[in-house]
Amino acid sequence: MTPEEFRAAGHRLIDWIADYRASVDARPVMARTEPGDVKRQLPAHPPVDPEPFDAIVGDLDRIIVPGLSHWQHPQFFGYFPCNGSLASVLGDYVSTGLGVLGLSWQASPALTEVEDVATDWMRQMLGLADGWSGVIQDTASTSTLVALICARERTTAFSATRGGLQAESSPLVVYTSAQSHSSVDKAALLAGFGRANIRVVPHDASHAMRPEMLASAIEADRRAGACPCAIVATAGSTASTAFDPLEAIGGIASEHGVWLHVDAAMAGSAMILPECRHLWHGVERADSLVVNPHKWLGVAFACTLYYMRDPEHLIRVMSTNPSFLQSAADGRVKNFRDWGVPLGRRFRALKLWFLIREQGIAKLQARLRRDLANARWLADQVRAAAGWRLVAPVALQTLCVLHEPAGVDGEALDRHTQAWVARVNRSGAAYLTPAILDGRWMARVSIGVESTERRHVEALWQTLRAEAEAAASTLA
Amino acid sequence: MTPEEFRAAGHRLIDWIADYRASVDARPVMARTEPGDVKRQLPAHPPVDPEPFDAIVGDLDRIIVPGLSHWQHPQFFGYFPCNGSLASVLGDYVSTGLGVLGLSWQASPALTEVEDVATDWMRQMLGLADGWSGVIQDTASTSTLVALICARERTTAFSATRGGLQAESSPLVVYTSAQSHSSVDKAALLAGFGRANIRVVPHDASHAMRPEMLASAIEADRRAGACPCAIVATAGSTASTAFDPLEAIGGIASEHGVWLHVDAAMAGSAMILPECRHLWHGVERADSLVVNPHKWLGVAFACTLYYMRDPEHLIRVMSTNPSFLQSAADGRVKNFRDWGVPLGRRFRALKLWFLIREQGIAKLQARLRRDLANARWLADQVRAAAGWRLVAPVALQTLCVLHEPAGVDGEALDRHTQAWVARVNRSGAAYLTPAILDGRWMARVSIGVESTERRHVEALWQTLRAEAEAAASTLA
Repeated sequence: MTPEEFRAAGHRLIDWIADYRASVDARPVMARTEPGDVKRQLPAHPPVDPEPFDAIVGDLDRIIVPGLSHWQHPQFFGYFPCNGSLASVLGDYVSTGLGVLGLSWQASPALTEVEDVATDWMRQMLGLADGWSGVIQDTASTSTLVALICARERTTAFSATRGGLQAESSPLVVYTSAQSHSSVDKAALLAGFGRANIRVVPHDASHAMRPEMLASAIEADRRAGACPCAIVATAGSTASTAFDPLEAIGGIASEHGVWLHVDAAMAGSAMILPECRHLWHGVERADSLVVNPHKWLGVAFACTLYYMRDPEHLIRVMSTNPSFLQSAADGRVKNFRDWGVPLGRRFRALKLWFLIREQGIAKLQARLRRDLANARWLADQVRAAAGWRLVAPVALQTLCVLHEPAGVDGEALDRHTQAWVARVNRSGAAYLTPAILDGRWMARVSIGVESTERRHVEALWQTLRAEAEAAASTLA
Repeated sequence: MTPEEFRAAGHRLIDWIADYRASVDARPVMARTEPGDVKRQLPAHPPVDPEPFDAIVGDLDRIIVPGLSHWQHPQFFGYFPCNGSLASVLGDYVSTGLGVLGLSWQASPALTEVEDVATDWMRQMLGLADGWSGVIQDTASTSTLVALICARERTTAFSATRGGLQAESSPLVVYTSAQSHSSVDKAALLAGFGRANIRVVPHDASHAMRPEMLASAIEADRRAGACPCAIVATAGSTASTAFDPLEAIGGIASEHGVWLHVDAAMAGSAMILPECRHLWHGVERADSLVVNPHKWLGVAFACTLYYMRDPEHLIRVMSTNPSFLQSAADGRVKNFRDWGVPLGRRFRALKLWFLIREQGIAKLQARLRRDLANARWLADQVRAAAGWRLVAPVALQTLCVLHEPAGVDGEALDRHTQAWVARVNRSGAAYLTPAILDGRWMARVSIGVESTERRHVEALWQTLRAEAEAAASTLA
């Protein structure tokens, strides 16, 4: 495709995307496709000859879009808001169009320097101290893996340079809670700790880790000859936005020389609001921290920020320096290939930089405050309605909701919850992803898609009541 | 930014990118910026209020583009071709514009099913057997880490479910050669093997691993009580495109029950040409394989294909199943979150699917054959020119070149090589990244940018001779 063909096709696709975003609210939120429906419509073999661009765009309309759940839909209340804000989308378009890579500073100096500046802008916006260095990673899962590998190497005085983790005599242990994200267990297993060396520290009624139980777990491990290595604390859990008490946990981490990694993937965006920062009080005590601006804040996926206190430690763990990557600038510049797992590096900072500049801090803050107010409004409705209950505190923009028909509890209540949530999703009017909290299924409502206004939350509440009551009527 | 604002700004940026691509050949290939030049022009603090879109685009022209090395420039012969082919760029624009995520099949069914189809199209194009399953990862570095973790878990009968790597009694060992990519060592260290358990198997004069030396290293380790775990073989090395003998290595891997991972990150693209497939003869014996369509083939970065013989094994290592990700379709669908490290997943398959459809196999093959012919032409010139030498076989599109003025050798020759390559790069007329081969610096010429035609390679040869001779004249 020549630049002139790209110009023509690109203009067409810009209109196609603008139209999609402008009309997405008319589609059913959750895909109504069955397994194999999309695949069945695609040729089993690749084409030998070029296809006209028309055919490709036609298939987008005919096959692809009907096979999607629409994350940018104002009635999307599932998982978490993954706002691909349109200014950020354009920043990513520039990155992909330029097609440059940052294997080293020299390979594209502006790529590295804009990343340096934009991650520092975000540090300031989050209210973090000067001492943090930031880098863009792909996801929080990867960042937590990076953090646990760093912790492993610090604890073992860089065993990777010798016989590796397998040569260590006393087992290294990771501490987290049952409310932490599934990626924490996964990262600990991938980093070689083993399930037997993951301690699940009990949490309190608000689903926050109990620091005194953490301290006793660490002390018990020490007495048993194990080696406490890392704590992964959560600032805003996935199920209910619970906040582990970072100040107390940080004190325990310091006392025992244990690495503290804080997972603020979702809730970190809220910290651009000074009134929310008390929720992660103590974050300055962490060794590493992950925040996903590709969630609520609105940066096009993927853009995860990994902040650390000591980048030299990270670099020592991740560094490679083959001859073909060396340049005269080395020693005077950051080479971000040494700040994470991949060598190849997109110009991801552009999509963060575009968003911050096009919105400014004030507009980003206003949007998040709108969402918090919408969540408070819905929480008030739930509290006031007979048969409805919030089963967790509403710390930010996620509600954990139960509809309890008289006389229905236990597993019957689980079945009812799943039935009415499935009705909501099949209706196309809204999309929720239920989850288990305290051993029971609950309807999880995550508010914060950029296009979601109060009227959409009002419509959601109507839908919830209608479908829950319809499902309840089938119980009788 | 509203959809209508996006429409206006998007049209403008499409023109901006088309103009950039159409005129990139007029720019110096390598950035002429000094460390800190870009950063110095950017505000130290984020803006409180929105900035006009004009200001952002103006900064692209004024600050960003002059700070880039231009990977899509027809005179870019550094690193490897990382073609962001414009049809693929548009596929990525659709993905970013749709803003959907594939946390599970249900979260966006078409995302999973197009990835399933497109990776299978590529399997067919590469001439691989039916038995391979493919998935898109971000980079080869990450894929090699995934492969080594899978190998570790197979060898230890899934130690992750127990005490982890740290509970194993006999050390697990990884085998590779000194010509393998720096990501192989890095992956082995991150996976916890430790440097003491990486064996560097000697290579022959063509820089290919010597299978008999591999076999004796494995046998020696067995005798010493260690546990041979994984071999990472390279099909097309970074420095000189050397191919390890996969058929022989695969036989040794089977005999000893050792995992074989094949790194064909760069050269894998060549396997869409049947006449090149003899180079990786034996690849069917591998347990896992990585190919980067985001290099020579032309898919916009990042799009790495990870193929494996046994996806159930991978899934067992990578799987998580928290309640909020469960859906009624589970068990009947692929959930690609269990096929790699990250949970979040872009609709990356679109950029691969767009490229294959817009080009067809025939045009992709024709472009690669053009590049191979250009490399052969340049190799002929080098061989015929007095004082010039190829220091490695030209297997595909990369040449390892030395200019040897009479009486200059050893470290003086290294200084001369680096001096004339630096002159080439500073001239702006071409960009090379030198590397060390057999202990000596050489000029590495990697041909294959989509816009590079024969005339550009002819111009490169003129530049090489002029700058090398100018540098030589300063020696006298």
